[in-house]
Amino acid sequence: MPSSPIRKLTPLANDAKSRGIKVYHLNIGQPDLPTPQKALDSLAKVDRSVLEYSPSQGFLSLREKLVKYYGRFNIALSPDDIIVTTGGSEAVLFAFMACLNPGDEIIVPEPAYANYMAFAVSAGAVIKSVPSSIETGFALPPVEEFEKLITERTKAILICNPNNPTGYLYTRSEMNQIRDIVKKHDLYLFSDEVYREFIYTGSPYISACHLEGIEQNVVLIDSVSKRYSECGIRIGALVTKNTALRDTVMKFCQARLSPPLIGQIVAEASIEDTEEYSADVYEEYVARRKCLVDGLNKIPGVYSPIPMGAFYTVAKLPVDDADRFCAWCLEEFSYEGETVMMAPASGFYSTPGLGKDEVRIAYVLKKEDLQRAIFLLEKALEAYNSRNA
Amino acid sequence: MPSSPIRKLTPLANDAKSRGIKVYHLNIGQPDLPTPQKALDSLAKVDRSVLEYSPSQGFLSLREKLVKYYGRFNIALSPDDIIVTTGGSEAVLFAFMACLNPGDEIIVPEPAYANYMAFAVSAGAVIKSVPSSIETGFALPPVEEFEKLITERTKAILICNPNNPTGYLYTRSEMNQIRDIVKKHDLYLFSDEVYREFIYTGSPYISACHLEGIEQNVVLIDSVSKRYSECGIRIGALVTKNTALRDTVMKFCQARLSPPLIGQIVAEASIEDTEEYSADVYEEYVARRKCLVDGLNKIPGVYSPIPMGAFYTVAKLPVDDADRFCAWCLEEFSYEGETVMMAPASGFYSTPGLGKDEVRIAYVLKKEDLQRAIFLLEKALEAYNSRNA
Repeated sequence: MPSSPIRKLTPLANDAKSRGIKVYHLNIGQPDLPTPQKALDSLAKVDRSVLEYSPSQGFLSLREKLVKYYGRFNIALSPDDIIVTTGGSEAVLFAFMACLNPGDEIIVPEPAYANYMAFAVSAGAVIKSVPSSIETGFALPPVEEFEKLITERTKAILICNPNNPTGYLYTRSEMNQIRDIVKKHDLYLFSDEVYREFIYTGSPYISACHLEGIEQNVVLIDSVSKRYSECGIRIGALVTKNTALRDTVMKFCQARLSPPLIGQIVAEASIEDTEEYSADVYEEYVARRKCLVDGLNKIPGVYSPIPMGAFYTVAKLPVDDADRFCAWCLEEFSYEGETVMMAPASGFYSTPGLGKDEVRIAYVLKKEDLQRAIFLLEKALEAYNSRNA
Repeated sequence: MPSSPIRKLTPLANDAKSRGIKVYHLNIGQPDLPTPQKALDSLAKVDRSVLEYSPSQGFLSLREKLVKYYGRFNIALSPDDIIVTTGGSEAVLFAFMACLNPGDEIIVPEPAYANYMAFAVSAGAVIKSVPSSIETGFALPPVEEFEKLITERTKAILICNPNNPTGYLYTRSEMNQIRDIVKKHDLYLFSDEVYREFIYTGSPYISACHLEGIEQNVVLIDSVSKRYSECGIRIGALVTKNTALRDTVMKFCQARLSPPLIGQIVAEASIEDTEEYSADVYEEYVARRKCLVDGLNKIPGVYSPIPMGAFYTVAKLPVDDADRFCAWCLEEFSYEGETVMMAPASGFYSTPGLGKDEVRIAYVLKKEDLQRAIFLLEKALEAYNSRNA
């Protein structure tokens, strides 16, 4: 079981705080924005004398609301197609467990969300990475790169769209390319689309569910965590039109009995309250994204592509080893009693050596804090690179 | 992935209900008793604007309350020894994942909780069953039966105490026997003790945590679900003094990010409110147990041992095939528009053919309903056995 570089930094951040240093967290995926008020209010309205098991597939009422929600994105589903899970995490785990045997291989464009690796280990599956690169803005690697990796053990392709950690949004032509490979080799397509609300370029959101001819191959991974800033309630979904696969997933669901009862109630209330809330949240992220990317690209030697979605960017820093630099920021650096914590990008690559000079930066801080954090990063880079000058 | 006989019965029960038949559910482990009022009240008191991730290990405040709770049972722990999980289910899964490699074997006295099998499949582990028998009241099989099963792949013994489905409570001498085997072969001891509050005989509760000399081998599986009638909040715990094992379990915890936030708040409030609530609940189960066991043993040909704990019994029925009989009760039988649903015991045995004439009956209905259900069972048995007379 791998341990990500970011987890190794946590004790260093705690040490820094215990020395009285203020740490700006650019490393986390927990939005600071409030949960919708209607969702918060739903807690006081729970009118039950027994907090009993809910159905293993999740409440029908929640699945019906999700059907309407997906309909807004031109994804036509029935409640039966949706299995409510304990966070998007469980949806990934159950997708792997249900579709893959030990030794089976999944092709994943890297950099990728680090926990996919952990769930693959749990399922005994092997992740084969196709590197994407900051030079091309993390676009989908050419089809030949996928074909090269396909063996008789290849069972699936996994994408995250919009992407964590890069913020990249796959184009229609890239999604069609994925569709063709999936179809040609009869693979599963696991598509993690939890950031669909956060697309900033006006480009269309092409869901794996929009791709024609591979309806039986697609497994959509979803979560309410990011879009309603309610990561703690642990409500996600696994969506597929493949009934045989659903039956297998349901066996895992029945073994763990049920997804969280209260979380489902909160999620249901959140979906009802989306329109105005989502518009406000969206505006906020648009402003933060501009602030972050402009700020980063003004620092000498720093380069960030413009992320099209989600609330992350992967930036290149003028350092030899971002793991070491991120640790140094916490252990040895401070400016006016403050420093910055970032996630070294190495943790998002499986291929050793890739991303050595990259970090993932999340824009889940308010603008003034983001600006201050970027200023601190600039000061840190100056100090780091003049250590032995 | 096995599918339990009880799940096959669910559509039959739904069919019966759609024909207007009232079904008494003796098949489920969901208590009907109310959740503690203080726990319900805690929902309205949640004063947070962001329902954010909680720590992967669970809130320290909850773990501190659990330390006090376990202290009442003479189990001395520190908060570090406790990992909060998404239900007892996740604790079982993580224990298996962290301790076992694919192909490793776990010895489990049967009949046993059916979902252990599903989690073993998830972990690629193999369950080896030691049969216990209704004739000896489901006492622990002799040590020789365990020894016979031990191979170089044997990594653990799993017990449930008090037992689901049998209601058996292991004696001090039986627990010492388990301790000796665990020590001799350096095995893990997974001990599911979620029913510790429900012991009706005055016999002492001997926790795996009380056994001396195997502190590094014991993994306690726990849950607040049954004791506070809050199965829906999905809060359990994995407890171990083995720090290396805890580090491994924490990697699985970090991959799934956090246990449910609101569930932890409810669980914390429940623990504070235990004393009077637990006494009332206890009295209720004592009365139901007497009502059930007396009633069952008065039916000609039916035998139930007296369960010492939990809220189940495994009873022997005068039928050739309890799977068929339970299905028949739902498909073909009714008396005054009512029938009864039970869990065929075959689903709790791994050894084919065992438990063919046994059912698990849960006493989670109020006394009048229990009495009516027993009456219906008697009528059903009469009708079933005179079909071809």
